[in-house]
Amino acid sequence: RTLRIGLIPGDGIGREVIPAGRRILEALPASLGLKFSFVDLDAGFDTFKRTGAALPEQTVETLKKECDGALFGAVSSPITATKGYSSPIVALRKKLDLYANVRPVKSVAPTPCFPDPIDLVIVRENTEDLYVKEEKTYDGPNGKVAEAIKRISESASTRIATIAGEIALRRQRVRETTGETSRKSMVTVTHKSNVMSQSDGLFRTTARKALEQAKFKDAGVVIDDQIVDSMAYKLFREPSFYDVIVAPNLYGDILSDAAAALVGSLGLVPSANVGDGFAIGEPCHGSAPDIEGKGIANPIATLRSVALMLEFMNQEEAAASIYKAVDANLVEGKLLTPDMGGKAKTEEVVNDIIKRL
Amino acid sequence: RTLRIGLIPGDGIGREVIPAGRRILEALPASLGLKFSFVDLDAGFDTFKRTGAALPEQTVETLKKECDGALFGAVSSPITATKGYSSPIVALRKKLDLYANVRPVKSVAPTPCFPDPIDLVIVRENTEDLYVKEEKTYDGPNGKVAEAIKRISESASTRIATIAGEIALRRQRVRETTGETSRKSMVTVTHKSNVMSQSDGLFRTTARKALEQAKFKDAGVVIDDQIVDSMAYKLFREPSFYDVIVAPNLYGDILSDAAAALVGSLGLVPSANVGDGFAIGEPCHGSAPDIEGKGIANPIATLRSVALMLEFMNQEEAAASIYKAVDANLVEGKLLTPDMGGKAKTEEVVNDIIKRL
Ligand SMILES: CC(C)[C@H](C(=O)O)[C@@H](O)C(=O)O
Ligand SMILES: CC(C)[C@H](C(=O)O)[C@@H](O)C(=O)O
Repeated sequence: RTLRIGLIPGDGIGREVIPAGRRILEALPASLGLKFSFVDLDAGFDTFKRTGAALPEQTVETLKKECDGALFGAVSSPITATKGYSSPIVALRKKLDLYANVRPVKSVAPTPCFPDPIDLVIVRENTEDLYVKEEKTYDGPNGKVAEAIKRISESASTRIATIAGEIALRRQRVRETTGETSRKSMVTVTHKSNVMSQSDGLFRTTARKALEQAKFKDAGVVIDDQIVDSMAYKLFREPSFYDVIVAPNLYGDILSDAAAALVGSLGLVPSANVGDGFAIGEPCHGSAPDIEGKGIANPIATLRSVALMLEFMNQEEAAASIYKAVDANLVEGKLLTPDMGGKAKTEEVVNDIIKRL
Repeated sequence: RTLRIGLIPGDGIGREVIPAGRRILEALPASLGLKFSFVDLDAGFDTFKRTGAALPEQTVETLKKECDGALFGAVSSPITATKGYSSPIVALRKKLDLYANVRPVKSVAPTPCFPDPIDLVIVRENTEDLYVKEEKTYDGPNGKVAEAIKRISESASTRIATIAGEIALRRQRVRETTGETSRKSMVTVTHKSNVMSQSDGLFRTTARKALEQAKFKDAGVVIDDQIVDSMAYKLFREPSFYDVIVAPNLYGDILSDAAAALVGSLGLVPSANVGDGFAIGEPCHGSAPDIEGKGIANPIATLRSVALMLEFMNQEEAAASIYKAVDANLVEGKLLTPDMGGKAKTEEVVNDIIKRL
């Protein structure tokens, strides 16, 4: 069977990295027995300016009806409120119920700052928290006042913690095959329940409860929890401490960008927006208007996002071959884009990685 | 005139570091012409267990009526909601209208990770945002749902940005006296207005407007703004970029702990809770139950918090002498507490710093 992949480049360097994602899928070894077909889909600020909709209905429908997976590049959201505009990636996550945003951060070699290997994954809740975008503005006694709602539900907290637990189990299985069995599996629940005792309190207790399911307990998955500010601190002081981190939407957003700094460049960090039976790979970097059109965007975040998408499509072997090729490129360290201190072009890096497949 | 200082040790190592704060005030050179008197005040979880109130009315009244400034240690807030308990430091900030939480992060020497000097200050709004603690829980269609309100007002955003601008001006004056005039003054406004267009949008536009006041413009203070997730990233990639960062309450909480990791230990990072005419110095570390009672807590965060409190009491000369003595201890690097990789006791570090005054 042919797997059909939706390609949504979006704006800026999204248009330079998504083609790289397509190329690596086309270059996968025939021995894997995978075939792909592609459909180009619109979304983003340019689409908004052209059509009045940042996320055309057609894009959502095609993804729902035709696609087995998708790749999303980046969009350049305007900072100031723009009538009728709303972030298409945030909308897409909700419309397709892609409730988990999975963001692995992994080092390939020790650095002076971080001599110990970093290999963690942030599992970010993707549908609620302050991202429900329910806001209002009114006149207070001393000028304007604006309020936003942070919403945390037991059901969303249960399913995000459950998938975090499953990811911990999968990582454990991978470590068993590679012999790294000394490392313990752990899920750390992020919250600020010392201040938000009801909302973050609900996230914390619900997530812990979900992680106490027999399938996790029996496999020895340790449950830990940590307050978000001290996690931001410890993430830098002792990143090798973490295995799987599960977090409400906004903390996950902030912590995953922070974690990207641990491995040197946002241009390396992939993500997948995951729902039941569907995943959209998405590099963590943005549309990067400063380097747009120069052909120097780092393709690695996208290539790793392709691998992550494949993992959630149960194509673990194909995923592993991409990870391996990317790691080999990084360990050699000869063909690197400027964000990594190198001089290579996007295309040269992609060619090098494809050669290593 | 004698300056009267309220001492609120709180819980855990708060009881070990606040006495150090008192000692340094008593040891200030007579040439400064300052006299201090002290009053011991209760607050914290132990106080709650003993009296039923985490922040006794008497503590608030004494601070309001008798004190010129105060020092707060740390409290051990319970993670799970505890009937009748609410964080005393959060309450104190609101009751005394200490609307700014000022958190300087400064390196004393280059490190392999951060070869460039780090000298930034986070000015965190201290009275609103999700810290209004207005929460409710209800039964949804699929289990419990909890909501919290994030409130941002024009008035609080204006005054926090204004004090951030004033801090930028003061830092500029200090740099002029020390000859470091090559560095430009800049205030970076933190927000997530690409998602929360009303609440964070209001913070962003209001803060920018306040910073456009002539007194800042004429002094050449540059206004910048940045989305919180990319700030978390850049804070680690290029910390020397930042001068003054102004942020809503929760982002400020997370970013300031993250920034503490840049200089190696939370045990080094001070803060001051500042209102009109009153300041409470507070080390950024918590009550650290793991090292409580061992006499090895790092006193430096508290000693620098004393200096910060003095700055906001317009005792800049006394403040400068404490900063200098602390820096000299750190640059020599012989007497360090365990969090810094040393073996010294709290008392030995305090003695060493007092000798250098
Ligand atoms: C662009 C923005 C709306 C988005 C988010 O906040 O989720 C981005 O930061 C991300 O992490 O994918
Ligand atoms: C203890 C807690 C309520 C507090 C806060 O969140 O403000 C602490 O983290 C701080 O930064 O002072």
